Amino acid sequence: MKIIHALKSVLLFAMLSVMASQFALAKTSDPLPSWNDGPTKTAILQFMDKVTDEHSDQYVPLDERVATFDNDGTLWSEKPMYFQILFAFDRVKALAPSHPEWKTTKPFSLVLNNELDKLTGEDALKIVAATHTGMTSDEFDKQVKEWIATAKHPLTGKPYTDMVFQPMLELLNYFRSNGFKTYIVSGGGNAFMRAWVTPVYNIPPEQVIGTRLSAEMREVDGKMQMWRLPEVSVNNDKEVKPVEIYQAIGRRPVAAFGNSDGDLAMLQWTMSGDGARLAMYVHHTDDKREWKYDRFSSVGKLDKGLDEAQSKGWLIADMKNDWKQIYPSDK
Amino acid sequence: MKIIHALKSVLLFAMLSVMASQFALAKTSDPLPSWNDGPTKTAILQFMDKVTDEHSDQYVPLDERVATFDNDGTLWSEKPMYFQILFAFDRVKALAPSHPEWKTTKPFSLVLNNELDKLTGEDALKIVAATHTGMTSDEFDKQVKEWIATAKHPLTGKPYTDMVFQPMLELLNYFRSNGFKTYIVSGGGNAFMRAWVTPVYNIPPEQVIGTRLSAEMREVDGKMQMWRLPEVSVNNDKEVKPVEIYQAIGRRPVAAFGNSDGDLAMLQWTMSGDGARLAMYVHHTDDKREWKYDRFSSVGKLDKGLDEAQSKGWLIADMKNDWKQIYPSDK
Repeated sequence: MKIIHALKSVLLFAMLSVMASQFALAKTSDPLPSWNDGPTKTAILQFMDKVTDEHSDQYVPLDERVATFDNDGTLWSEKPMYFQILFAFDRVKALAPSHPEWKTTKPFSLVLNNELDKLTGEDALKIVAATHTGMTSDEFDKQVKEWIATAKHPLTGKPYTDMVFQPMLELLNYFRSNGFKTYIVSGGGNAFMRAWVTPVYNIPPEQVIGTRLSAEMREVDGKMQMWRLPEVSVNNDKEVKPVEIYQAIGRRPVAAFGNSDGDLAMLQWTMSGDGARLAMYVHHTDDKREWKYDRFSSVGKLDKGLDEAQSKGWLIADMKNDWKQIYPSDK
Repeated sequence: MKIIHALKSVLLFAMLSVMASQFALAKTSDPLPSWNDGPTKTAILQFMDKVTDEHSDQYVPLDERVATFDNDGTLWSEKPMYFQILFAFDRVKALAPSHPEWKTTKPFSLVLNNELDKLTGEDALKIVAATHTGMTSDEFDKQVKEWIATAKHPLTGKPYTDMVFQPMLELLNYFRSNGFKTYIVSGGGNAFMRAWVTPVYNIPPEQVIGTRLSAEMREVDGKMQMWRLPEVSVNNDKEVKPVEIYQAIGRRPVAAFGNSDGDLAMLQWTMSGDGARLAMYVHHTDDKREWKYDRFSSVGKLDKGLDEAQSKGWLIADMKNDWKQIYPSDK
């Protein structure tokens, strides 16, 4: 045993030396290669230097390093509508053969006839209920996984998981490599997101805070299963986002990222903490490589939030100018 | 750089060798020294061997290793009543000087005059509301931390954190050292527990799933704060426990530990999963070193659960016979 202990000490020292070299390397190589040089990128790098420097008065201890990221419009695209709604439409089409009555029953007939512009908000809820509930948690998880592996976006023809933002993937990695625990905090359904985010964002299911549909334990074929129910128990948007972060992880984030007024409360709560904080809006300004919208958009409306970010000096990532590349498959 | 890479490979191999030696060591030393040898301990060790053996058909991949632990009566004592209620009583006494009307106002007067047997369930809720809400999250956190650092249990005179179960601390460590993520899933308040569990159980705040009191974001002195509200939004007991596990972490536990009928649904859901599963009840059988109670207790009632555990062969840790030591300070 003594030999092992001695060997351990030597190895520990050597490993620390290597880690120190890698750290020095990390400092000199670019952790955000898809970001153009400019004030946004510089501010992110400077923030990280401060909070990870033990000699800085803005140092943040490891166990306080929490960063929260909205999903739709922040980590992946959200046009022409939230991708989860497109999943629901695809499910209506897939289920239609076993629901012949849907051909003539609204709102399903509207989806089957591609009259999507006639759908109301209430219709959307009915469609979500019919496609997201009335099944076990395992069945739903399987359906989402099959869809995400095969479905294509109606306008770009890309798989949905190719429509995540390369600069944000780099940002997630950069935060994690500096000891941050990265969370998704989204209006999207928690079970919908958990079915695919882990391989795409490297975020485990338990670090996803989303909208909750109710569920109950039920005996199915002699086994206890989680049964999904047609009722929204937590609508994780606007002022609910900081509350759900508090209820789920018990701490105020040190950094928060969003793209809409639905994220404003999360960013406000984050920035009200002591010490160094970072808030950033992704601003959709690129109608060539992605979409261009803010104040008057049908989804991801950024109006009050844009004013507050500008007046308070929060970061605004201008997709057109700050991002060298949008999607991972772009050159 | 080449030298560093070569050095890294050598070190990685050497580290793996040391880790393998340590693993062999772990296999031969006793990870549960406070547990008497016997069928319960043997079953726990055998379960762990199976789920961590890559060649076993019951192998559980690392990212599925989730274990959930009730707190009151499972990780620490709960007599004469839940310690969180004793915290609330202590807070009533501490706040009494600034509430002179409490001397003559029920239910506060009952607490101040030590007429606790006259308190109803509704009274308890009023006392929790008066002591747990109407303040910011930071203020509440500070109050709990101060209390847990100084308060003494009314019967044993011990600090409350000395009344955690040494065998369960070993079990938590044993599960973690085998790659399990350990969660508390308790009827206790999530914010109350998060104020002290990390140094005591080595469980971070985000791995605590508890009862939720409502909260809202409020501007206080120009900053956004989380304000605690007098309303229970999730009562994390019985059938709610598995639902909250699903909503919070999105997966079924592989192992679950409880001590009462309030944990039965969590254990049932855990055991309904495929492959190797472990469910264990802590059975309070030791009236000398702790307390002895089950079917007819005022707290921690274990009645239906005891029958189901016995009929299905779940583990039952008999405190008197299975545990060499109860509290960390015991000899």
